[in-house]
Amino acid sequence: MDDLACDCLRLRGGTLELLDQRLLPGCEQWLPCPDIDSVIAAIQGLAVRGAPAIGVSAALALGCLAERGVDLARFREQAARLRAARPTAVNLMHLVDRLLARADQDQGLAAIPALARAAFDEDVALCEAMADHGAALIADGMRVLTHCNTGGLATVGLGTALGVIRRAHSLGRAVQVWVDETRPLLQGARLTAWELGRAGIPYRLISDSMAASLMAAGQVDQVWVGADRIAANGDAANKIGTYSLAVLAHHHGIPFHVVAPSTTLDLACADGHAIPIEERDPAEVRGFAGSAGALAWAPAGCPVYNPAFDVTPAALIDAWVLESGVYTREQVAAGALAGRPTPLG
Amino acid sequence: MDDLACDCLRLRGGTLELLDQRLLPGCEQWLPCPDIDSVIAAIQGLAVRGAPAIGVSAALALGCLAERGVDLARFREQAARLRAARPTAVNLMHLVDRLLARADQDQGLAAIPALARAAFDEDVALCEAMADHGAALIADGMRVLTHCNTGGLATVGLGTALGVIRRAHSLGRAVQVWVDETRPLLQGARLTAWELGRAGIPYRLISDSMAASLMAAGQVDQVWVGADRIAANGDAANKIGTYSLAVLAHHHGIPFHVVAPSTTLDLACADGHAIPIEERDPAEVRGFAGSAGALAWAPAGCPVYNPAFDVTPAALIDAWVLESGVYTREQVAAGALAGRPTPLG
Repeated sequence: MDDLACDCLRLRGGTLELLDQRLLPGCEQWLPCPDIDSVIAAIQGLAVRGAPAIGVSAALALGCLAERGVDLARFREQAARLRAARPTAVNLMHLVDRLLARADQDQGLAAIPALARAAFDEDVALCEAMADHGAALIADGMRVLTHCNTGGLATVGLGTALGVIRRAHSLGRAVQVWVDETRPLLQGARLTAWELGRAGIPYRLISDSMAASLMAAGQVDQVWVGADRIAANGDAANKIGTYSLAVLAHHHGIPFHVVAPSTTLDLACADGHAIPIEERDPAEVRGFAGSAGALAWAPAGCPVYNPAFDVTPAALIDAWVLESGVYTREQVAAGALAGRPTPLG
Repeated sequence: MDDLACDCLRLRGGTLELLDQRLLPGCEQWLPCPDIDSVIAAIQGLAVRGAPAIGVSAALALGCLAERGVDLARFREQAARLRAARPTAVNLMHLVDRLLARADQDQGLAAIPALARAAFDEDVALCEAMADHGAALIADGMRVLTHCNTGGLATVGLGTALGVIRRAHSLGRAVQVWVDETRPLLQGARLTAWELGRAGIPYRLISDSMAASLMAAGQVDQVWVGADRIAANGDAANKIGTYSLAVLAHHHGIPFHVVAPSTTLDLACADGHAIPIEERDPAEVRGFAGSAGALAWAPAGCPVYNPAFDVTPAALIDAWVLESGVYTREQVAAGALAGRPTPLG
């Protein structure tokens, strides 16, 4: 496959390399992933995260694998392992399934590298379209609040929710961003703050529990988040803490927007109850580990509950921004998402 | 003054010593405070925290100062500096004012050490009474959620909200506690987890943003929190994140209880808008520093908003547990708190 590059991944000489996001913002280090095992480890360890970025990483890894001349049986076996690396974000499953379907159809792997490359190009285009649609909703001077990281590190393009905010900024609108630090893994403090600083967009970092009092003080005009999986009825799984924000936004009458490409839709899930929620290592809550070192501040071995995601019901979401446009709660309740074809689908 | 001791402070040979809570749970180290400057530094640096514990620490420090034979003018000047050490918790101001009033009345300091000692004994008794009243509301098998630390480290007795939970446990009721880690200073992860572990009470630690999905899943029966200042109308200032929990509990129909002694009432504040909210060092949000070391995970110098407290309006509180009993929203709306005398008042 030809070399390519974006903020979070690159192809060099037929090998996938991932920017190791566990080390950001302290250290920018590229992690070579010469085989599927290393990609699975990178996905599970969160060297790469963000539903679209995980999906495209997997597609490119399979493109490289196909190019290395493995047989169809081996390809299928490796693809199945990669597909199961993380349970909640559905883009991974969708993109792997797309490549597997083509391999089965062709009874061969000749088309796989180009199809993987197309997944990369597609994600860039999806981000552009979402940014266009979403930015139209952000007026000059607005103060927006976001959670986790949904920018150029979570996708291979401009981003989902953060892409919308970046587009509004680049259109010349004065936007101020409240950044939830996003415990336990601090993607907001480490990644979103880093991206916004590099883009020159005004922001202030807060602990997650501070959002409510900002809302009560009239300091938040809109909330913008991404999604890891959206059910047919509009219920959206996203980083833990998203549901909390949705309830708070609802209480304060603040519009709550979800931005995701149609590759994040899972029409096989009728509603959010069908979305599996990953539970992760208690050590993530007992402390923090990053490029600057590791600390455990809770008592050793203390019992922990650590769900990586939560589900926001459609009733708390005011708008879904997809590459095909903005959908209201009424449209989604009437089945608008259930009728959307996936791109290239 | 005679020696005395509790979990968070002790008097030894006429000198106040504070258990340095910044170093817990990794290290149990007592910090000698031989003068008022060192007490002010300990309060501002959070070696001692929790509204009642701050107030009693200040009273005992002034008792020791009086015993060392300072004159009235010097006593007044030092007391005024101590009174201003932190702006939100009102127990500090109340107890200092009580000692100052007596010194003025006597035109001397002879009664101050005994009055300081009485403040210690009073806080122990207040905790016992609150625990009795509050524990009656916790049924066998309940899952309760708490925020920050409100136990034997926040008071010189059993605690406020955590005292209620500890009493329910000691009465033989099966209680399970969800412990909010309480960013940015992690009093839940460091202090409440440590206290519950030592008391043998089942608990699980969560990041603050996980409370909402636990509530949605029916895993939380009640919320119990303390307060740093309660206005005449029942509005309560408490650790940042408390208001967020109150909105979430309201949305999910979960009872929300505030536990505080009447020394935390400030009838001079008609409502929560009159309560000053302390903003603290951005470094607290950019990372964490404790006995195990220090980490900064956000970009260097990144802009931060760091309010230490928020205000929960009375409309979101289901019960106020004081040493004199349990007050409902209707009673508080009818002026029940405004009519409560402060103890020894």
